[in-house]
Amino acid sequence: MSAFTSPIEWIERGAVRMLDQTVLPTIERYHDYTDAEGVAAAIRTMVIRGAPAIGIAAAFGLALGLRRAVEEDLRGAALRARFDELCEMLAATRPTAVNLFWAIERMRRRFEAEAARVSPSELVELLVDEATAIHREDVACNRRIGALGAPLLHGVSSVLTHCNTGALATGGYGTALGVIRRCYEEGHPIRVLANETRPFLQGARLTAWECQREGIDVRLLTDAMAGHFMARGAIGAVIVGADRVAANGDTANKIGTYTMAVLAHVHRLPFYVAAPISTIDLSLASGELIPIEERAASEVSSCFGQPIAPEGVAVCNPAFDVTPGELIAAIITERGVARPPYDESLAALVARTD
Amino acid sequence: MSAFTSPIEWIERGAVRMLDQTVLPTIERYHDYTDAEGVAAAIRTMVIRGAPAIGIAAAFGLALGLRRAVEEDLRGAALRARFDELCEMLAATRPTAVNLFWAIERMRRRFEAEAARVSPSELVELLVDEATAIHREDVACNRRIGALGAPLLHGVSSVLTHCNTGALATGGYGTALGVIRRCYEEGHPIRVLANETRPFLQGARLTAWECQREGIDVRLLTDAMAGHFMARGAIGAVIVGADRVAANGDTANKIGTYTMAVLAHVHRLPFYVAAPISTIDLSLASGELIPIEERAASEVSSCFGQPIAPEGVAVCNPAFDVTPGELIAAIITERGVARPPYDESLAALVARTD
Repeated sequence: MSAFTSPIEWIERGAVRMLDQTVLPTIERYHDYTDAEGVAAAIRTMVIRGAPAIGIAAAFGLALGLRRAVEEDLRGAALRARFDELCEMLAATRPTAVNLFWAIERMRRRFEAEAARVSPSELVELLVDEATAIHREDVACNRRIGALGAPLLHGVSSVLTHCNTGALATGGYGTALGVIRRCYEEGHPIRVLANETRPFLQGARLTAWECQREGIDVRLLTDAMAGHFMARGAIGAVIVGADRVAANGDTANKIGTYTMAVLAHVHRLPFYVAAPISTIDLSLASGELIPIEERAASEVSSCFGQPIAPEGVAVCNPAFDVTPGELIAAIITERGVARPPYDESLAALVARTD
Repeated sequence: MSAFTSPIEWIERGAVRMLDQTVLPTIERYHDYTDAEGVAAAIRTMVIRGAPAIGIAAAFGLALGLRRAVEEDLRGAALRARFDELCEMLAATRPTAVNLFWAIERMRRRFEAEAARVSPSELVELLVDEATAIHREDVACNRRIGALGAPLLHGVSSVLTHCNTGALATGGYGTALGVIRRCYEEGHPIRVLANETRPFLQGARLTAWECQREGIDVRLLTDAMAGHFMARGAIGAVIVGADRVAANGDTANKIGTYTMAVLAHVHRLPFYVAAPISTIDLSLASGELIPIEERAASEVSSCFGQPIAPEGVAVCNPAFDVTPGELIAAIITERGVARPPYDESLAALVARTD
């Protein structure tokens, strides 16, 4: 096993390297991308996925795209126009995770701040620095989320999680899985029950893989088993990540999350969300305003290229759902743990500048 | 497409033919079994599955096994001892569906009634007749369940179902899917939302296939999508089959059923169970007494032989769960529709002899 720490890495010679998350765990394959188009395709096809990780990828994509434009000798208004096009292209890859737009916006602000001040090639270097900072800061955020969230799981012997929210979904370490990782580092024994998370199988392929490598006790479930194990008292809490959190705490996350939140509610188990502040979108009052991506039918009707349903069957494939804030016991961010009412607690955390 | 009506068929020359449900929908393959051992293996490996269908298969398996014993010239006490062994072998194939034990018991009663009265070869013929009657009666039961259940779905435009409860799970026609089929035959337009039903994918592979062949409007979902679609008002009712119903209405059915029942309860949707009287086990006061089969880890960690999780990961694979009677709006049998309190209504239906 290689010493895996991050799904994405800036390579000095000017490329971004990604671990291909479409073929894990059977194949560990890396791709190097040298232009923004390649990065956009990697986000769309889920070579890289997870809200924080796709924000980081888009940032590096912008730096790569700008470098290409400077190599083509674009300057001034033409360079700015190209940069706008690159932002648009990367923003169009996936609609739900707000971290993508947050990262693009941050890169755009750096571009605006520096473009008139430095040479085009220096501008490229500064945007590489900005993307690198986004990446580095995300890992620091994750560690802080882990430290703040771990106490919520002390005394919980089995925690259910959905999708993958570990190092693979972020710059490294993880959000919800980062909280679990922190418990493990602190010596609190905790068992992870990992939903396989159909259709893309992030739980089976990625969470199980990460836990296994870290030595974290993990059991794999199919998604609809959760109710059965809750009824038997085998689950003490649920923790998930988020792709976008509205001002009132409504949380878009991987399809199936809402089902888990309802089950947790009925079985009186705490349901936690762990996500960086960059996931919170105060511009949306509630979750019904969050755009939900519909992905290809083939993700449901086949598995690794093998058809698992009759040809031509109609398929539903929303990639996300929305869990109402009322079902969420706490939202763990790097600036603190928000509790209901979220309208107040989230606004206060976002306003803080420490 | 062949004119499929039943997953199991007695062939005049003395074999039972089964449609291989492990390879549908990509391959339509039939196997002929000429001995009880082959039938037992077919049940264990789920070449045939569905509570009513495995009861029918076991009955034919006993007839085939008895014929083999008679060909070996076993008579009297030796023949009876062999018959007991055959019953034991077939009863050991799967523990949860009570229809298996019901069918074996019915065959045993016929054996006891006839063994002293007729020649061994005549006894074989009578047991073939008994198995054929079990098969034929199951189809009639299903049609009656369909007729009694369909009015419950009138006015429902979209119904969610889990696993496969159609012709493939029974002697033909189906239980829960039979109710839907009846609605369709009556001209009530109804859309089926079919859970894919991991790990064995009975919904994706079998329910979608049956609906497609019948021209019933079907949409395939992954299992944890149900909450999302209920929250959006896209589901009007849930209907499932059963592997065993305890005296108080607690119902063992395919893993994931309980999760669907909780979701239906929270969203105030009626949750129906459709099953023949042979599924009701009044000997068990409540569902916690129903044995739950644990199946192989490889069913979860791989899909059509393709690994979908890291090697050696620990897996949970209970094949069934138990839905408390309180969550069930009605249990539809061929003798009538039972309503809560089930202790009374189910006992009354079982006692009826019409």
